[in-house]
Amino acid sequence: MTGYNAIIFGESAADMTPSTPSKLSPDLALFARWVVPVAPAQQVLEDHAVLINGGRISHILPATEAEARLSSEALESAVHLRHHALIPGLVNAHGHAAMSLLRGIGDDMPLKAWLEEKIWPLEGKLVDAEFVEAGTRLAAAEMILSGTTCFSDNYFFPESAARVVTETKLRAQLACPVIDFPTPWARDADEYIEKTTQLSDQYRHDERIHIAFGPHSPYSVSDAPLMKIAALAEELDLPIHMHVHETQAEVDAAQQDTGERPLARLTRLGLLSPRLFCTHMTALTEAEIAQIASSGTHVAHCPESNLKLVSGFCEVDKLQRAGINVALGTDGCASNNDLDMFSEMRTAAQLAKAVAGDATALPAHAALAMATINGARALGLESEIGSIEIGKFADLAAIDLSSINSQPLYDVISHLVYSTQASQVSDVWSGGHALLRAGELQTIDRAALLKTTQIWQQRVLEASANA
Amino acid sequence: MTGYNAIIFGESAADMTPSTPSKLSPDLALFARWVVPVAPAQQVLEDHAVLINGGRISHILPATEAEARLSSEALESAVHLRHHALIPGLVNAHGHAAMSLLRGIGDDMPLKAWLEEKIWPLEGKLVDAEFVEAGTRLAAAEMILSGTTCFSDNYFFPESAARVVTETKLRAQLACPVIDFPTPWARDADEYIEKTTQLSDQYRHDERIHIAFGPHSPYSVSDAPLMKIAALAEELDLPIHMHVHETQAEVDAAQQDTGERPLARLTRLGLLSPRLFCTHMTALTEAEIAQIASSGTHVAHCPESNLKLVSGFCEVDKLQRAGINVALGTDGCASNNDLDMFSEMRTAAQLAKAVAGDATALPAHAALAMATINGARALGLESEIGSIEIGKFADLAAIDLSSINSQPLYDVISHLVYSTQASQVSDVWSGGHALLRAGELQTIDRAALLKTTQIWQQRVLEASANA
Repeated sequence: MTGYNAIIFGESAADMTPSTPSKLSPDLALFARWVVPVAPAQQVLEDHAVLINGGRISHILPATEAEARLSSEALESAVHLRHHALIPGLVNAHGHAAMSLLRGIGDDMPLKAWLEEKIWPLEGKLVDAEFVEAGTRLAAAEMILSGTTCFSDNYFFPESAARVVTETKLRAQLACPVIDFPTPWARDADEYIEKTTQLSDQYRHDERIHIAFGPHSPYSVSDAPLMKIAALAEELDLPIHMHVHETQAEVDAAQQDTGERPLARLTRLGLLSPRLFCTHMTALTEAEIAQIASSGTHVAHCPESNLKLVSGFCEVDKLQRAGINVALGTDGCASNNDLDMFSEMRTAAQLAKAVAGDATALPAHAALAMATINGARALGLESEIGSIEIGKFADLAAIDLSSINSQPLYDVISHLVYSTQASQVSDVWSGGHALLRAGELQTIDRAALLKTTQIWQQRVLEASANA
Repeated sequence: MTGYNAIIFGESAADMTPSTPSKLSPDLALFARWVVPVAPAQQVLEDHAVLINGGRISHILPATEAEARLSSEALESAVHLRHHALIPGLVNAHGHAAMSLLRGIGDDMPLKAWLEEKIWPLEGKLVDAEFVEAGTRLAAAEMILSGTTCFSDNYFFPESAARVVTETKLRAQLACPVIDFPTPWARDADEYIEKTTQLSDQYRHDERIHIAFGPHSPYSVSDAPLMKIAALAEELDLPIHMHVHETQAEVDAAQQDTGERPLARLTRLGLLSPRLFCTHMTALTEAEIAQIASSGTHVAHCPESNLKLVSGFCEVDKLQRAGINVALGTDGCASNNDLDMFSEMRTAAQLAKAVAGDATALPAHAALAMATINGARALGLESEIGSIEIGKFADLAAIDLSSINSQPLYDVISHLVYSTQASQVSDVWSGGHALLRAGELQTIDRAALLKTTQIWQQRVLEASANA
């Protein structure tokens, strides 16, 4: 694929005179003022067309060439994005989609009180298959509206989330929870693990749903299940997604209780590998950073959640310089309080500079890569999504840059990261299917969604009042 | 006024049986699902009406009572904001409006290179009265679209900015620059000061334009002009707006060169007082914080600019606990890169927690206060704007909370700060004049603005290429 891309990108595509005079008839042709493929980094193609066949990108051509080579039928049905940047669909690398039903229920509280007095009691009363389905659908709508086409989800009842992913035509990594204590979804670690492997079998050949192990955190999962997960992940070729080193307090507590830092324990248990995807990673030593890098372990960075919950600062610039793949996530709506990856990119790019003490840290194009190709890589999907390249799925988002806050325009990628509002996302495709057209959801019934959300709002309020 | 408010707010307004049966006929009646007056803090009035007479707020009534008391004419012309929160227009307490023409021209560069290689050469070539008028109009449009009704501006050719403020019906503090070296606006400190006092005379009785002294910073203005400004500010009753302690490097350089920290020097020169409004304030000792508090000096916090330019962290929570009034600003578009006060509130609320190490720091209602009443106070306008109170100007913004990213809704103020996009601002009034109706600018010709901005974009690109 790389060779083919090199030809398309390296030489003028106009030199590639087709050997037959037959016209191109793709399923869909998108003409955009700017195409930002993300790979290669920093490239902005002006006035180009992206052609889609069988859900995948078949050609990336200058607009004039596309006009000459497309069949009249394809030209007639082409979509013209005259003031838009066409970018890879964003990859939200860490979240808890169903928790969107708890958006803003408990802000500005210390983490312990927030969890123990608000979130856990409410989850205990409310979380079931129906809650997860309603909450995931609400999250799906918000993600589509803000340009996200793939998300990693860590929550109970992943089979409900899977149904919503199929129905809404998004793409997801469903990291099925494993935790030492019982929840409405499973009794014990064995049952969590068994349910995960069953789901993995069920969705093994699904293009949209990718099952992963989601052991919650080092402090909530004991050695035996973690070792079992490490072995099964290898056997079944599954990723492992886990909250690790979320706060200094977590690291200190482990060290005090066991004499061993969480990352050292995961290393001892054989978890560090390119299969492992660790979220947060705010308290790391130089030696740990080197170990993460050499093991190929991925990191998910959630800057807004980290700030709001006072989790500490993830040293993104240092991790990236060490060669670690860092992806970007919003975390759940209960802690963020949105799923807006544009806001998250901006915060990541701004905060990385302050944390590194270096204004050149995490430049705009690197923040966009975090939100796309790095996320794809962390999910093990880098050959399928995360960039606009020939052969990849046509997971795409169009951003209207004609709005006042995008004027004047000197640098498209700077604008995407530093001054774009999520509401500028006008159109979204996933595997060539339209999920959003001119701001209208295509795979979700907006009115029905709002109605169901109202019902859940009432239930949450009642559960909250009776707490 | 406080007494009257106390009656309206304290008792049910329904108890205030009018002594005459005559109906109320305000210039404008706004019915809103929620009214968030900001003063008193944390209050959310459900289904209320705000009545406007002569540009000022005359009544705040429950909707049912307003319906009963309004004349049929007033009811017919009433505006119904059925899914909206009506809030005080936001006050952007620090910026450089005209620099919106340089949005994103030089990102991800170290401060020194950014200033010396990008911004200053471009400003040297481009800045004149016409540039300032075009740039300020672009900024005005962006501010109105995102709910800002009053801004403090620090830039050259403030007479051009004043014309735009008058024309667009915004409200502004124009802090006229004073700096030791010549610029196209003035030759030397005396001329800067003279032009400022002239503008102050010209606009003394203007309701929309408030002139202030804007000495750039301690390092760029010498003792004599600063003492002159302190005396004239007292004599003419004008505020002083200044960048102070923007970075640790600024403080260190002053200490090394003169043995005196910048704040100590300003104290010695007699500048610390409730007239002084210091922007940034990232490097302060405990003693300095106490001094700022006891002198009544105000602080403008620009979190996104501080992060992006690596200025250091302003300890907002500590300053507020010391009793200092902290306002919120976006800084200029060249460094932020937008004028979005919703994004700025969110970043301020999130960052303050991380900096304080306390998840309860700067709760949502305090962030909203920073962006409204605290800004008004810092500008010396707290009796006129910054809250929805009887007698104040009707500077208001309506935020549509029916969008997906605002569902479900448990806490209006939490949503305004943590999950609202600026694009949800639907309507804006300033002194009762409509500046935005259903998303459409009322005092700015959008098409003409975009055309002029295109021309300036070309000029900036040419100046940049010839640099």
